[in-house]
Amino acid sequence: MKIAKLVLILAYLSTSLVKADSTWVQPDSENLLVMQLSSGRVVLQLAPEFAPAHVRNIRQLVAQGYFDGSSILRSQDNYVVQWGDPESEPGKQKSLGKAAATLKVEFFRDLEDINFVEITSTDAYAEKVGFVDGFPAASDGKRVWLAHCYGMLGVSRDVEDDSGNGSGLYVVTGHAPRHLDRNVTLVGRVLEGMSLLSSLPRGTGDLGFYESSSEYVPINSIKLGSDYFASSPAGIGLKMMNTNSAEFMQHVATRTSRTEGWFLEPTGKIELCNVGVPQK
Amino acid sequence: MKIAKLVLILAYLSTSLVKADSTWVQPDSENLLVMQLSSGRVVLQLAPEFAPAHVRNIRQLVAQGYFDGSSILRSQDNYVVQWGDPESEPGKQKSLGKAAATLKVEFFRDLEDINFVEITSTDAYAEKVGFVDGFPAASDGKRVWLAHCYGMLGVSRDVEDDSGNGSGLYVVTGHAPRHLDRNVTLVGRVLEGMSLLSSLPRGTGDLGFYESSSEYVPINSIKLGSDYFASSPAGIGLKMMNTNSAEFMQHVATRTSRTEGWFLEPTGKIELCNVGVPQK
Repeated sequence: MKIAKLVLILAYLSTSLVKADSTWVQPDSENLLVMQLSSGRVVLQLAPEFAPAHVRNIRQLVAQGYFDGSSILRSQDNYVVQWGDPESEPGKQKSLGKAAATLKVEFFRDLEDINFVEITSTDAYAEKVGFVDGFPAASDGKRVWLAHCYGMLGVSRDVEDDSGNGSGLYVVTGHAPRHLDRNVTLVGRVLEGMSLLSSLPRGTGDLGFYESSSEYVPINSIKLGSDYFASSPAGIGLKMMNTNSAEFMQHVATRTSRTEGWFLEPTGKIELCNVGVPQK
Repeated sequence: MKIAKLVLILAYLSTSLVKADSTWVQPDSENLLVMQLSSGRVVLQLAPEFAPAHVRNIRQLVAQGYFDGSSILRSQDNYVVQWGDPESEPGKQKSLGKAAATLKVEFFRDLEDINFVEITSTDAYAEKVGFVDGFPAASDGKRVWLAHCYGMLGVSRDVEDDSGNGSGLYVVTGHAPRHLDRNVTLVGRVLEGMSLLSSLPRGTGDLGFYESSSEYVPINSIKLGSDYFASSPAGIGLKMMNTNSAEFMQHVATRTSRTEGWFLEPTGKIELCNVGVPQK
């Protein structure tokens, strides 16, 4: 009886260790969104662990086809691109259908509940920085929140803290605006097609909004990864380095030490948003 | 006699104070370069105080028309655009004329020799950070060097520390690659037209180089500001906030505190490359 229990425990441990040690992981298509632009596809990975209500709402909107025929409305240099319903007049806007119209911001997870892989870095904005299952994150030693690095996906909102709902989304295309951390809900990151967003012409209106509708960039569709990749057993194909793996810590060390011959004064330092998560 | 001397000293002091207190400064056209693309003009401001030999060489190349008919050869997402002679075969390359072919890297100025305006920030890469006459900079308490923030202009080089000469130049178009500080010579910053560079299609070759010459972005010309603006007494028109002014320190304080109503958790922190120097 005792031995059987021990075997079970060992079996469980070995499974979880193998999982934790795996260097490359394929993102679960359940957590992917695929945005189709005329220039190609952008694949986004959602972070339901950090923003469960927002991710649920975004999935609902996507399932309803809310973003099909929507537009990229804003491209502010060194900041963000933003998309949503091109119609701003309340009566004419697309229906949110079954999705919630107001959602309170979601930022925090408890440090003790999650796998926060801390890196050695001095950060301008937080006590600790590191990664949680592929996402750059910061912590005060108790709570952990996602960090606004290049390529992160967030939910636009107005002044009220429940004025966002996921019908307006943005991606960071410039130097990390980390002052937005804990102020806007981050819901994921771009895995593929980032340059289709970052190289868009900049809007000439206030905050980089396109001034005329002829400048809007059409979004043909946004689909759930589980639908988009349903007919393709390999899914996205792309593999991301597992930030819980020893190889990732080696990657961080290499990015920190910079001992390649080209460097004259290897920095020996690294900043969170300069780490990057390798993919293949 | 003594009174006359005192008056002269006071007159001198008041002039220099007025100059130091002036909130807005118009960049000296002597230190400007104007790059003409088919999409518009890009104005660059040189930093001869930090890289005198490189700036002299670049001016020489520009005066010889070296860059007229050259090309942007590289656009690497979240990193840099780079330009120079599209011909890589030694025998066929453009002549450097009177310009030097090799220049040792130039990084440092003594802190005590310059006006380093330190800001309150925790930096991942340096002990102190701040601004020197408009340029973001870092310091170890003795030396000061320019920092690789968005929009900074640098000199490409190979492995040897004297393999750059200014015939190949790059501009930072992504999250600040601060590990390049003290490794590549920075020679200036973009003042106008940044989005013409940052929104270029990304190259699909290694390091974001364009794979075929049909993708190269033609540079019609690069001219010295002193020539380009010679016929226009107003010069560039653009005014930059004087980083030595009280108003600039107020700008840094505002960017740090973020007490605007929109912010839920004002950060109270700032990172060097998120400060930005206002212009009008």
